[in-house]
Amino acid sequence: MDSIMSMLHDICMNVRSKVSKMSREEAGISLARGAGGDITKKIDKVGEDAALEVVREYDVSCKVLSEEAGLVDSGRKGRGGADANASNDDGSCIIVLDAIDGTTNAVRGIPFYSCSVAYATSDRLSSVTHAAVMDLTSGDIYYAVRGNGAYMNGSRIKTVNTSNDRAGYVIGINLSGISIDKLKRMSSILAMTNHIRQFGSNALEMCLLARGLLDAYIDVRGKIRVTDIAAACLIIVEAGGIVVDEHLNMLDAPLSLDARLSFIASADKSMLNYIFSSIASS
Amino acid sequence: MDSIMSMLHDICMNVRSKVSKMSREEAGISLARGAGGDITKKIDKVGEDAALEVVREYDVSCKVLSEEAGLVDSGRKGRGGADANASNDDGSCIIVLDAIDGTTNAVRGIPFYSCSVAYATSDRLSSVTHAAVMDLTSGDIYYAVRGNGAYMNGSRIKTVNTSNDRAGYVIGINLSGISIDKLKRMSSILAMTNHIRQFGSNALEMCLLARGLLDAYIDVRGKIRVTDIAAACLIIVEAGGIVVDEHLNMLDAPLSLDARLSFIASADKSMLNYIFSSIASS
Repeated sequence: MDSIMSMLHDICMNVRSKVSKMSREEAGISLARGAGGDITKKIDKVGEDAALEVVREYDVSCKVLSEEAGLVDSGRKGRGGADANASNDDGSCIIVLDAIDGTTNAVRGIPFYSCSVAYATSDRLSSVTHAAVMDLTSGDIYYAVRGNGAYMNGSRIKTVNTSNDRAGYVIGINLSGISIDKLKRMSSILAMTNHIRQFGSNALEMCLLARGLLDAYIDVRGKIRVTDIAAACLIIVEAGGIVVDEHLNMLDAPLSLDARLSFIASADKSMLNYIFSSIASS
Repeated sequence: MDSIMSMLHDICMNVRSKVSKMSREEAGISLARGAGGDITKKIDKVGEDAALEVVREYDVSCKVLSEEAGLVDSGRKGRGGADANASNDDGSCIIVLDAIDGTTNAVRGIPFYSCSVAYATSDRLSSVTHAAVMDLTSGDIYYAVRGNGAYMNGSRIKTVNTSNDRAGYVIGINLSGISIDKLKRMSSILAMTNHIRQFGSNALEMCLLARGLLDAYIDVRGKIRVTDIAAACLIIVEAGGIVVDEHLNMLDAPLSLDARLSFIASADKSMLNYIFSSIASS
Protein backbone atom coordinates (compact mmCIF):
# COMPACT_ATOMS: atom_id res chain seq x y z
CA MET A 1 0.00 0.00 0.00
CA ASP A 2 1.53 3.36 -1.00
CA SER A 3 1.58 6.34 1.35
CA ILE A 4 -1.44 8.06 -0.20
CA MET A 5 -3.57 4.92 0.04
CA SER A 6 -2.32 4.46 3.57
CA MET A 7 -3.59 7.96 4.39
CA LEU A 8 -7.02 7.30 2.82
CA HIS A 9 -7.27 4.04 4.73
CA ASP A 10 -6.38 5.76 8.01
CA ILE A 11 -8.93 8.51 7.31
CA CYS A 12 -11.70 5.91 6.97
CA MET A 13 -10.54 4.08 10.08
CA ASN A 14 -10.44 7.24 12.18
CA VAL A 15 -13.86 8.41 10.94
CA ARG A 16 -15.35 5.02 11.81
CA SER A 17 -13.70 4.99 15.21
CA LYS A 18 -14.99 8.46 16.12
CA VAL A 19 -18.55 8.18 14.82
CA SER A 20 -19.16 4.67 16.13
CA LYS A 21 -19.07 6.10 19.65
CA MET A 22 -21.99 8.46 18.95
CA SER A 23 -25.58 7.77 19.93
CA ARG A 24 -28.25 8.26 17.24
CA GLU A 25 -29.52 11.27 19.18
CA GLU A 26 -26.11 12.92 19.28
CA ALA A 27 -25.40 12.02 15.65
CA GLY A 28 -28.58 13.76 14.55
CA ILE A 29 -28.06 17.14 16.23
CA SER A 30 -28.41 19.86 13.59
CA LEU A 31 -25.53 22.33 13.34
CA ALA A 32 -25.13 25.15 10.80
CA ARG A 33 -25.61 24.84 7.03
CA GLY A 34 -22.49 23.32 5.43
CA ALA A 35 -20.58 24.56 2.40
CA GLY A 36 -22.52 22.09 0.24
CA GLY A 37 -25.82 23.72 1.17
CA ASP A 38 -27.28 20.99 3.41
CA ILE A 39 -27.71 21.25 7.17
CA THR A 40 -24.63 19.70 8.76
CA LYS A 41 -25.49 17.08 11.38
CA LYS A 42 -23.15 16.51 14.29
CA ILE A 43 -22.07 13.14 12.84
CA ASP A 44 -20.94 14.95 9.66
CA LYS A 45 -18.83 17.38 11.67
CA VAL A 46 -17.32 14.69 13.91
CA GLY A 47 -16.54 12.60 10.81
CA GLU A 48 -14.98 15.52 8.96
CA ASP A 49 -12.87 16.50 11.97
CA ALA A 50 -11.65 12.91 12.29
CA ALA A 51 -10.65 12.90 8.62
CA LEU A 52 -8.85 16.27 8.81
CA GLU A 53 -6.97 15.09 11.89
CA VAL A 54 -5.44 12.28 9.82
CA VAL A 55 -4.67 14.60 6.89
CA ARG A 56 -2.75 16.87 9.27
CA GLU A 57 -0.82 13.92 10.69
CA TYR A 58 0.27 12.93 7.17
CA ASP A 59 1.38 16.52 6.66
CA VAL A 60 0.50 16.73 2.97
CA SER A 61 0.28 20.03 1.14
CA CYS A 62 -3.04 19.25 -0.60
CA LYS A 63 -6.21 21.18 -0.20
CA VAL A 64 -9.23 19.30 1.11
CA LEU A 65 -12.63 19.59 -0.60
CA SER A 66 -15.26 18.54 1.91
CA GLU A 67 -19.04 18.61 1.86
CA GLU A 68 -19.21 20.50 5.13
CA ALA A 69 -16.21 22.84 5.13
CA GLY A 70 -15.82 23.44 1.39
CA LEU A 71 -12.28 23.81 -0.02
CA VAL A 72 -9.81 24.21 2.84
CA ASP A 73 -6.09 23.96 3.41
CA SER A 74 -4.95 20.73 4.99
CA GLY A 75 -3.33 22.55 7.87
CA ARG A 76 0.13 21.33 6.90
CA LYS A 77 2.61 21.69 9.70
CA GLY A 78 5.61 22.51 7.52
CA ARG A 79 8.04 21.21 4.91
CA GLY A 80 9.80 17.92 5.30
CA GLY A 81 6.60 16.09 6.23
CA ALA A 82 6.58 12.35 6.09
CA ASP A 83 5.77 9.70 3.55
CA ALA A 84 3.28 11.62 1.45
CA ASN A 85 6.14 13.66 0.04
CA ALA A 86 7.18 10.57 -1.83
CA SER A 87 4.11 11.13 -4.00
CA ASN A 88 2.99 13.82 -6.38
CA ASP A 89 2.59 16.25 -3.51
CA ASP A 90 3.43 19.59 -5.12
CA GLY A 91 0.51 21.42 -3.55
CA SER A 92 -1.87 21.06 -6.48
CA CYS A 93 -3.41 17.90 -5.08
CA ILE A 94 -6.91 17.78 -3.62
CA ILE A 95 -8.36 15.33 -1.10
CA VAL A 96 -12.05 14.94 -1.92
CA LEU A 97 -13.99 14.00 1.19
CA ASP A 98 -17.48 13.02 2.16
CA ALA A 99 -16.83 11.86 5.71
CA ILE A 100 -20.39 10.55 6.09
CA ASP A 101 -22.23 9.59 2.88
CA GLY A 102 -25.71 8.51 3.90
CA THR A 103 -26.11 10.78 6.94
CA THR A 104 -29.86 10.20 7.10
CA ASN A 105 -29.37 6.43 7.35
CA ALA A 106 -26.75 6.92 10.06
CA VAL A 107 -29.04 9.16 12.09
CA ARG A 108 -32.05 6.87 11.64
CA GLY A 109 -30.12 3.74 12.56
CA ILE A 110 -30.28 2.15 9.10
CA PRO A 111 -26.95 0.31 8.77
CA PHE A 112 -25.95 1.61 5.32
CA TYR A 113 -23.64 4.65 5.29
CA SER A 114 -20.04 5.19 4.39
CA CYS A 115 -16.93 7.34 4.41
CA SER A 116 -15.77 8.36 0.93
CA VAL A 117 -12.33 9.86 0.27
CA ALA A 118 -10.33 10.34 -2.91
CA TYR A 119 -6.96 11.84 -3.81
CA ALA A 120 -6.68 13.90 -6.99
CA THR A 121 -3.52 15.31 -8.55
CA SER A 122 -5.31 18.39 -9.87
CA ASP A 123 -8.73 20.02 -9.84
CA ARG A 124 -10.77 17.62 -12.03
CA LEU A 125 -12.58 14.39 -11.23
CA SER A 126 -10.52 12.71 -13.95
CA SER A 127 -7.34 13.40 -11.97
CA VAL A 128 -8.36 11.14 -9.07
CA THR A 129 -5.64 8.53 -8.64
CA HIS A 130 -6.51 6.96 -5.27
CA ALA A 131 -9.88 6.18 -3.74
CA ALA A 132 -11.34 4.54 -0.65
CA VAL A 133 -14.91 3.99 0.55
CA MET A 134 -15.57 2.35 3.90
CA ASP A 135 -18.86 0.81 4.98
CA LEU A 136 -19.00 2.43 8.41
CA THR A 137 -21.24 -0.30 9.83
CA SER A 138 -19.29 -3.40 8.81
CA GLY A 139 -15.87 -1.80 8.40
CA ASP A 140 -15.55 -3.28 4.89
CA ILE A 141 -13.24 -1.11 2.82
CA TYR A 142 -13.30 -0.72 -0.98
CA TYR A 143 -10.30 0.95 -2.62
CA ALA A 144 -8.44 1.48 -5.84
CA VAL A 145 -5.29 3.06 -7.25
CA ARG A 146 -5.58 4.12 -10.90
CA GLY A 147 -4.27 1.39 -13.17
CA ASN A 148 -4.03 -1.21 -10.41
CA GLY A 149 -7.53 -2.64 -10.09
CA ALA A 150 -10.11 -2.37 -7.33
CA TYR A 151 -10.16 -4.22 -4.04
CA MET A 152 -12.38 -4.97 -1.09
CA ASN A 153 -10.62 -5.92 2.15
CA GLY A 154 -7.57 -7.08 0.20
CA SER A 155 -9.42 -9.12 -2.44
CA ARG A 156 -9.74 -8.04 -6.06
CA ILE A 157 -13.29 -7.10 -7.07
CA LYS A 158 -14.83 -6.89 -10.53
CA THR A 159 -18.12 -5.68 -11.94
CA VAL A 160 -20.36 -8.44 -13.25
CA ASN A 161 -23.26 -8.22 -15.68
CA THR A 162 -24.92 -11.04 -13.83
CA SER A 163 -28.01 -11.74 -15.84
CA ASN A 164 -28.90 -12.50 -19.42
CA ASP A 165 -32.51 -11.82 -18.51
CA ARG A 166 -33.38 -8.12 -18.50
CA ALA A 167 -36.11 -8.55 -15.88
CA GLY A 168 -33.48 -10.11 -13.63
CA TYR A 169 -31.16 -7.10 -13.58
CA VAL A 170 -30.62 -5.50 -10.19
CA ILE A 171 -30.38 -1.76 -10.79
CA GLY A 172 -29.79 0.95 -8.24
CA ILE A 173 -31.49 4.25 -9.06
CA ASN A 174 -31.41 7.39 -6.97
CA LEU A 175 -34.94 8.80 -7.14
CA SER A 176 -34.87 11.04 -4.06
CA GLY A 177 -36.38 14.39 -4.99
CA ILE A 178 -36.33 13.57 -8.71
CA SER A 179 -38.20 16.02 -10.95
CA ILE A 180 -41.23 14.77 -12.82
CA ASP A 181 -39.47 15.25 -16.18
CA LYS A 182 -36.46 13.22 -15.12
CA LEU A 183 -38.62 10.54 -13.54
CA LYS A 184 -40.34 10.12 -16.90
CA ARG A 185 -36.96 9.28 -18.46
CA MET A 186 -36.60 6.46 -15.90
CA SER A 187 -40.06 5.03 -16.51
CA SER A 188 -39.07 2.31 -19.02
CA ILE A 189 -36.24 1.00 -16.86
CA LEU A 190 -38.47 0.94 -13.80
CA ALA A 191 -41.20 -0.88 -15.72
CA MET A 192 -38.81 -3.48 -17.17
CA THR A 193 -36.69 -4.20 -14.10
CA ASN A 194 -37.94 -6.53 -11.38
CA HIS A 195 -35.25 -5.52 -8.92
CA ILE A 196 -34.84 -1.79 -8.32
CA ARG A 197 -32.77 -0.74 -5.32
CA GLN A 198 -32.04 2.46 -3.39
CA PHE A 199 -30.13 2.03 -0.16
CA GLY A 200 -29.33 5.66 0.66
CA SER A 201 -25.55 6.08 0.27
CA ASN A 202 -24.45 6.73 -3.33
CA ALA A 203 -20.80 5.96 -2.61
CA LEU A 204 -21.55 2.61 -1.00
CA GLU A 205 -24.14 1.63 -3.61
CA MET A 206 -21.57 2.31 -6.32
CA CYS A 207 -19.20 -0.04 -4.47
CA LEU A 208 -21.89 -2.74 -4.56
CA LEU A 209 -21.81 -2.31 -8.34
CA ALA A 210 -18.00 -2.52 -8.34
CA ARG A 211 -18.32 -5.75 -6.39
CA GLY A 212 -20.79 -7.31 -8.83
CA LEU A 213 -23.86 -7.14 -6.57
CA LEU A 214 -25.66 -4.52 -8.70
CA ASP A 215 -25.66 -4.44 -12.51
CA ALA A 216 -25.96 -0.66 -12.79
CA TYR A 217 -26.40 2.47 -10.72
CA ILE A 218 -28.15 5.52 -12.14
CA ASP A 219 -28.47 9.05 -10.82
CA VAL A 220 -29.79 11.48 -13.43
CA ARG A 221 -31.30 13.97 -10.98
CA GLY A 222 -28.53 16.52 -11.58
CA LYS A 223 -28.09 16.90 -7.83
CA ILE A 224 -25.13 14.81 -6.77
CA ARG A 225 -21.84 16.43 -5.75
CA VAL A 226 -18.32 15.32 -6.68
CA THR A 227 -17.61 14.76 -2.99
CA ASP A 228 -20.20 11.94 -2.95
CA ILE A 229 -18.85 10.03 -5.92
CA ALA A 230 -15.20 10.91 -6.59
CA ALA A 231 -13.86 7.82 -4.81
CA ALA A 232 -16.52 5.39 -6.02
CA CYS A 233 -16.11 6.43 -9.67
CA LEU A 234 -12.46 5.32 -9.67
CA ILE A 235 -13.33 2.12 -7.80
CA ILE A 236 -15.95 1.22 -10.43
CA VAL A 237 -13.63 1.97 -13.36
CA GLU A 238 -10.82 -0.04 -11.79
CA ALA A 239 -13.28 -2.90 -11.20
CA GLY A 240 -14.01 -2.98 -14.94
CA GLY A 241 -17.14 -0.86 -14.98
CA ILE A 242 -18.04 2.33 -16.84
CA VAL A 243 -19.20 5.71 -15.49
CA VAL A 244 -20.58 8.17 -18.04
CA ASP A 245 -22.53 11.40 -18.09
CA GLU A 246 -25.91 11.88 -19.74
CA HIS A 247 -24.26 12.30 -23.16
CA LEU A 248 -22.36 9.01 -22.93
CA ASN A 249 -19.05 10.78 -22.30
CA MET A 250 -16.78 9.52 -19.55
CA LEU A 251 -17.90 11.39 -16.43
CA ASP A 252 -15.72 14.36 -15.59
CA ALA A 253 -16.29 17.56 -13.63
CA PRO A 254 -14.39 20.25 -11.75
CA LEU A 255 -13.64 19.35 -8.14
CA SER A 256 -15.98 21.98 -6.75
CA LEU A 257 -19.08 21.88 -4.58
CA ASP A 258 -20.81 24.00 -7.25
CA ALA A 259 -20.82 21.10 -9.71
CA ARG A 260 -24.04 19.07 -9.62
CA LEU A 261 -23.83 15.91 -11.66
CA SER A 262 -25.86 13.22 -13.37
CA PHE A 263 -24.27 9.89 -14.20
CA ILE A 264 -24.85 6.32 -15.22
CA ALA A 265 -22.56 3.62 -13.88
CA SER A 266 -22.70 0.21 -15.44
CA ALA A 267 -21.07 -3.18 -15.07
CA ASP A 268 -20.20 -3.29 -18.78
CA LYS A 269 -20.88 -1.79 -22.22
CA SER A 270 -23.88 -3.97 -23.10
CA MET A 271 -25.60 -3.00 -19.86
CA LEU A 272 -24.87 0.67 -20.58
CA ASN A 273 -26.33 0.38 -24.08
CA TYR A 274 -29.46 -1.21 -22.64
CA ILE A 275 -29.90 1.63 -20.15
CA PHE A 276 -29.37 4.34 -22.77
CA SER A 277 -31.81 2.75 -25.19
CA SER A 278 -34.39 2.49 -22.37
CA ILE A 279 -33.95 6.15 -21.46
CA ALA A 280 -34.18 7.17 -25.11
CA SER A 281 -37.46 5.26 -25.51
CA SER A 282 -39.09 6.88 -22.45
CA MET B 1 -44.34 -16.55 24.59
CA ASP B 2 -47.39 -18.63 23.67
CA SER B 3 -47.10 -21.88 21.73
CA ILE B 4 -48.01 -20.38 18.36
CA MET B 5 -45.43 -17.61 18.69
CA SER B 6 -42.95 -20.21 19.82
CA MET B 7 -43.61 -22.13 16.60
CA LEU B 8 -43.17 -19.02 14.42
CA HIS B 9 -39.93 -18.20 16.23
CA ASP B 10 -38.63 -21.73 15.71
CA ILE B 11 -39.58 -21.60 12.02
CA CYS B 12 -37.48 -18.47 11.56
CA MET B 13 -34.57 -19.95 13.50
CA ASN B 14 -34.60 -23.18 11.49
CA VAL B 15 -34.84 -21.36 8.15
CA ARG B 16 -31.88 -19.18 9.12
CA SER B 17 -29.88 -22.15 10.30
CA LYS B 18 -30.44 -24.10 7.08
CA VAL B 19 -29.93 -21.31 4.53
CA SER B 20 -26.91 -19.79 6.25
CA LYS B 21 -24.96 -22.90 5.31
CA MET B 22 -25.59 -22.37 1.57
CA SER B 23 -23.10 -20.75 -0.79
CA ARG B 24 -24.39 -17.98 -3.08
CA GLU B 25 -23.95 -20.32 -6.04
CA GLU B 26 -26.01 -23.08 -4.45
CA ALA B 27 -28.63 -20.61 -3.20
CA GLY B 28 -29.15 -19.32 -6.73
CA ILE B 29 -29.76 -22.62 -8.53
CA SER B 30 -33.05 -22.35 -10.44
CA LEU B 31 -35.60 -25.09 -9.77
CA ALA B 32 -39.15 -25.32 -11.16
CA ARG B 33 -41.71 -22.49 -11.21
CA GLY B 34 -43.36 -22.18 -7.77
CA ALA B 35 -47.07 -21.93 -6.98
CA GLY B 36 -46.76 -18.14 -6.84
CA GLY B 37 -45.58 -18.02 -10.45
CA ASP B 38 -41.92 -17.12 -9.93
CA ILE B 39 -38.98 -19.43 -10.55
CA THR B 40 -38.13 -21.10 -7.24
CA LYS B 41 -34.46 -20.80 -6.34
CA LYS B 42 -32.82 -23.49 -4.27
CA ILE B 43 -32.63 -21.16 -1.26
CA ASP B 44 -36.44 -20.76 -1.43
CA LYS B 45 -36.92 -24.53 -1.40
CA VAL B 46 -34.42 -25.14 1.40
CA GLY B 47 -36.05 -22.36 3.43
CA GLU B 48 -39.56 -23.68 2.85
CA ASP B 49 -38.53 -27.24 3.75
CA ALA B 50 -36.93 -25.96 6.95
CA ALA B 51 -40.15 -24.13 7.86
CA LEU B 52 -42.39 -27.12 7.11
CA GLU B 53 -40.14 -29.35 9.21
CA VAL B 54 -40.90 -27.15 12.24
CA VAL B 55 -44.63 -27.05 11.47
CA ARG B 56 -44.68 -30.87 11.44
CA GLU B 57 -42.82 -31.00 14.75
CA TYR B 58 -45.44 -28.75 16.34
CA ASP B 59 -48.10 -31.09 14.96
CA VAL B 60 -50.72 -28.40 14.25
CA SER B 61 -53.71 -29.07 12.05
CA CYS B 62 -53.39 -25.83 10.04
CA LYS B 63 -52.86 -25.61 6.34
CA VAL B 64 -49.74 -23.82 5.15
CA LEU B 65 -49.90 -21.17 2.41
CA SER B 66 -46.44 -20.84 0.94
CA GLU B 67 -45.05 -18.91 -2.01
CA GLU B 68 -43.42 -22.02 -3.46
CA ALA B 69 -45.76 -24.90 -2.61
CA GLY B 70 -49.11 -23.07 -2.58
CA LEU B 71 -51.72 -24.19 -0.02
CA VAL B 72 -50.67 -27.48 1.54
CA ASP B 73 -51.54 -29.57 4.56
CA SER B 74 -49.11 -29.28 7.43
CA GLY B 75 -48.45 -33.01 7.45
CA ARG B 76 -49.89 -33.43 10.93
CA LYS B 77 -48.85 -36.66 12.55
CA GLY B 78 -52.09 -37.24 14.46
CA ARG B 79 -54.25 -36.06 17.32
CA GLY B 80 -52.86 -35.36 20.75
CA GLY B 81 -50.05 -33.21 19.32
CA ALA B 82 -48.28 -30.93 21.72
CA ASP B 83 -48.63 -27.33 22.83
CA ALA B 84 -50.26 -25.89 19.76
CA ASN B 85 -53.50 -27.62 20.70
CA ALA B 86 -53.79 -25.15 23.53
CA SER B 87 -54.60 -22.55 20.88
CA ASN B 88 -57.37 -22.03 18.39
CA ASP B 89 -56.26 -25.08 16.42
CA ASP B 90 -59.52 -26.41 15.02
CA GLY B 91 -58.14 -27.01 11.56
CA SER B 92 -59.30 -23.75 10.01
CA CYS B 93 -56.02 -22.00 10.77
CA ILE B 94 -53.50 -21.09 8.07
CA ILE B 95 -49.77 -20.53 8.42
CA VAL B 96 -48.77 -17.92 5.84
CA LEU B 97 -45.16 -18.35 4.84
CA ASP B 98 -42.56 -16.64 2.72
CA ALA B 99 -39.49 -18.54 3.85
CA ILE B 100 -37.17 -16.20 1.92
CA ASP B 101 -38.45 -12.70 1.22
CA GLY B 102 -35.78 -10.95 -0.83
CA THR B 103 -34.44 -13.98 -2.68
CA THR B 104 -32.57 -11.85 -5.22
CA ASN B 105 -30.66 -10.06 -2.45
CA ALA B 106 -29.82 -13.39 -0.83
CA VAL B 107 -28.52 -14.83 -4.10
CA ARG B 108 -26.54 -11.67 -4.95
CA GLY B 109 -25.00 -11.43 -1.50
CA ILE B 110 -26.79 -8.22 -0.51
CA PRO B 111 -27.40 -8.61 3.26
CA PHE B 112 -31.09 -7.69 3.31
CA TYR B 113 -33.54 -10.62 3.17
CA SER B 114 -35.89 -12.18 5.63
CA CYS B 115 -38.16 -15.03 6.68
CA SER B 116 -41.81 -14.00 7.04
CA VAL B 117 -44.39 -16.21 8.78
CA ALA B 118 -47.87 -15.48 10.12
CA TYR B 119 -50.61 -17.49 11.82
CA ALA B 120 -54.22 -16.80 10.83
CA THR B 121 -57.34 -18.24 12.44
CA SER B 122 -59.25 -18.30 9.15
CA ASP B 123 -58.75 -17.52 5.48
CA ARG B 124 -58.42 -13.72 5.49
CA LEU B 125 -55.48 -11.42 6.10
CA SER B 126 -57.52 -9.76 8.85
CA SER B 127 -57.54 -13.02 10.81
CA VAL B 128 -53.77 -13.03 11.35
CA THR B 129 -53.15 -13.16 15.11
CA HIS B 130 -49.43 -13.95 15.31
CA ALA B 131 -46.56 -12.74 13.15
CA ALA B 132 -42.79 -13.02 12.94
CA VAL B 133 -40.21 -11.63 10.51
CA MET B 134 -36.54 -12.49 10.92
CA ASP B 135 -33.67 -10.60 9.31
CA LEU B 136 -31.79 -13.66 8.06
CA THR B 137 -28.45 -11.82 8.02
CA SER B 138 -28.40 -10.36 11.52
CA GLY B 139 -30.84 -12.77 13.16
CA ASP B 140 -32.92 -9.84 14.47
CA ILE B 141 -36.52 -10.96 14.94
CA TYR B 142 -39.62 -8.75 14.79
CA TYR B 143 -42.88 -10.19 16.11
CA ALA B 144 -46.36 -9.40 17.30
CA VAL B 145 -49.46 -11.03 18.79
CA ARG B 146 -52.69 -9.19 18.01
CA GLY B 147 -53.57 -6.80 20.84
CA ASN B 148 -50.22 -7.15 22.57
CA GLY B 149 -47.89 -4.76 20.77
CA ALA B 150 -44.90 -5.36 18.51
CA TYR B 151 -41.41 -6.35 19.53
CA MET B 152 -37.89 -6.65 18.18
CA ASN B 153 -35.60 -9.06 20.04
CA GLY B 154 -37.66 -8.69 23.20
CA SER B 155 -37.96 -4.88 23.15
CA ARG B 156 -41.18 -3.05 22.36
CA ILE B 157 -41.09 -1.17 19.04
CA LYS B 158 -43.26 1.70 17.82
CA THR B 159 -43.71 3.54 14.57
CA VAL B 160 -42.46 7.13 14.62
CA ASN B 161 -43.34 10.00 12.33
CA THR B 162 -39.85 11.32 12.75
CA SER B 163 -39.87 14.57 10.90
CA ASN B 164 -41.88 17.72 10.81
CA ASP B 165 -40.16 18.60 7.56
CA ARG B 166 -41.69 16.86 4.55
CA ALA B 167 -38.41 16.84 2.63
CA GLY B 168 -36.89 14.99 5.58
CA TYR B 169 -39.27 12.03 5.44
CA VAL B 170 -37.67 8.66 4.74
CA ILE B 171 -40.13 6.74 2.57
CA GLY B 172 -39.76 3.23 1.23
CA ILE B 173 -41.40 2.71 -2.16
CA ASN B 174 -41.42 -0.50 -4.16
CA LEU B 175 -40.89 0.58 -7.77
CA SER B 176 -39.69 -2.73 -9.25
CA GLY B 177 -41.53 -3.34 -12.50
CA ILE B 178 -44.00 -0.52 -11.83
CA SER B 179 -46.24 0.43 -14.73
CA ILE B 180 -45.91 3.89 -16.23
CA ASP B 181 -49.42 4.84 -15.06
CA LYS B 182 -48.72 3.82 -11.49
CA LEU B 183 -45.31 5.48 -11.51
CA LYS B 184 -47.04 8.73 -12.46
CA ARG B 185 -49.10 8.50 -9.26
CA MET B 186 -45.85 8.32 -7.27
CA SER B 187 -44.26 11.31 -9.02
CA SER B 188 -45.20 13.99 -6.46
CA ILE B 189 -43.95 11.95 -3.51
CA LEU B 190 -40.70 11.17 -5.30
CA ALA B 191 -40.23 14.84 -6.18
CA MET B 192 -40.95 16.06 -2.65
CA THR B 193 -39.02 13.46 -0.64
CA ASN B 194 -35.25 13.73 -0.23
CA HIS B 195 -34.90 10.21 1.14
CA ILE B 196 -36.48 7.46 -0.94
CA ARG B 197 -35.51 3.88 -0.11
CA GLN B 198 -35.92 0.42 -1.64
CA PHE B 199 -33.93 -2.35 0.01
CA GLY B 200 -35.45 -5.39 -1.71
CA SER B 201 -37.42 -7.30 0.96
CA ASN B 202 -40.96 -5.96 1.51
CA ALA B 203 -41.40 -7.82 4.81
CA LEU B 204 -38.17 -6.49 6.28
CA GLU B 205 -38.70 -2.95 4.99
CA MET B 206 -42.12 -2.92 6.64
CA CYS B 207 -40.40 -3.93 9.90
CA LEU B 208 -38.07 -0.94 9.54
CA LEU B 209 -41.23 1.17 9.46
CA ALA B 210 -42.59 -0.63 12.54
CA ARG B 211 -39.32 0.17 14.28
CA GLY B 212 -39.47 3.87 13.43
CA LEU B 213 -36.64 3.89 10.87
CA LEU B 214 -38.92 4.64 7.90
CA ASP B 215 -41.90 7.01 7.97
CA ALA B 216 -43.92 5.13 5.36
CA TYR B 217 -43.73 2.21 2.96
CA ILE B 218 -45.70 2.22 -0.28
CA ASP B 219 -46.35 -0.53 -2.82
CA VAL B 220 -49.09 0.39 -5.29
CA ARG B 221 -47.89 -1.86 -8.12
CA GLY B 222 -50.72 -4.35 -7.58
CA LYS B 223 -48.17 -7.17 -7.61
CA ILE B 224 -47.44 -8.13 -4.01
CA ARG B 225 -48.73 -11.41 -2.54
CA VAL B 226 -50.24 -11.95 0.91
CA THR B 227 -47.39 -14.31 1.70
CA ASP B 228 -44.94 -11.39 1.47
CA ILE B 229 -46.76 -9.06 3.84
CA ALA B 230 -49.13 -11.01 6.13
CA ALA B 231 -46.70 -11.00 9.05
CA ALA B 232 -45.38 -7.47 8.58
CA CYS B 233 -48.89 -5.98 8.37
CA LEU B 234 -49.71 -7.18 11.90
CA ILE B 235 -46.31 -6.06 13.18
CA ILE B 236 -46.88 -2.53 11.81
CA VAL B 237 -50.40 -2.28 13.23
CA GLU B 238 -49.26 -3.54 16.63
CA ALA B 239 -46.41 -1.00 16.52
CA GLY B 240 -48.98 1.78 16.14
CA GLY B 241 -48.89 2.16 12.36
CA ILE B 242 -51.59 1.94 9.70
CA VAL B 243 -51.82 -0.29 6.62
CA VAL B 244 -54.50 0.58 4.08
CA ASP B 245 -55.42 -0.27 0.52
CA GLU B 246 -55.65 2.20 -2.34
CA HIS B 247 -59.13 3.28 -1.23
CA LEU B 248 -58.00 4.11 2.33
CA ASN B 249 -59.70 0.99 3.74
CA MET B 250 -57.80 -1.15 6.21
CA LEU B 251 -55.94 -3.67 4.08
CA ASP B 252 -57.62 -7.04 3.85
CA ALA B 253 -57.52 -9.87 1.30
CA PRO B 254 -58.16 -13.59 1.01
CA LEU B 255 -55.20 -15.74 2.03
CA SER B 256 -54.56 -16.96 -1.50
CA LEU B 257 -51.66 -16.71 -3.91
CA ASP B 258 -54.14 -15.38 -6.49
CA ALA B 259 -54.54 -12.12 -4.57
CA ARG B 260 -52.21 -9.36 -5.77
CA LEU B 261 -52.25 -6.33 -3.54
CA SER B 262 -51.43 -2.65 -3.36
CA PHE B 263 -51.00 -0.99 0.00
CA ILE B 264 -49.75 2.04 1.85
CA ALA B 265 -48.23 1.60 5.30
CA SER B 266 -47.67 4.65 7.39
CA ALA B 267 -46.28 5.58 10.80
CA ASP B 268 -49.41 7.54 11.67
CA LYS B 269 -52.55 9.20 10.31
CA SER B 270 -50.99 12.55 9.41
CA MET B 271 -48.32 10.80 7.36
CA LEU B 272 -51.01 8.76 5.62
CA ASN B 273 -53.01 11.88 4.79
CA TYR B 274 -49.89 13.48 3.32
CA ILE B 275 -49.24 10.47 1.10
CA PHE B 276 -52.83 10.27 -0.12
CA SER B 277 -52.95 13.97 -0.93
CA SER B 278 -49.67 13.63 -2.84
CA ILE B 279 -50.98 10.70 -4.85
CA ALA B 280 -54.23 12.54 -5.55
CA SER B 281 -52.34 15.56 -6.87
CA SER B 282 -50.17 13.50 -9.27
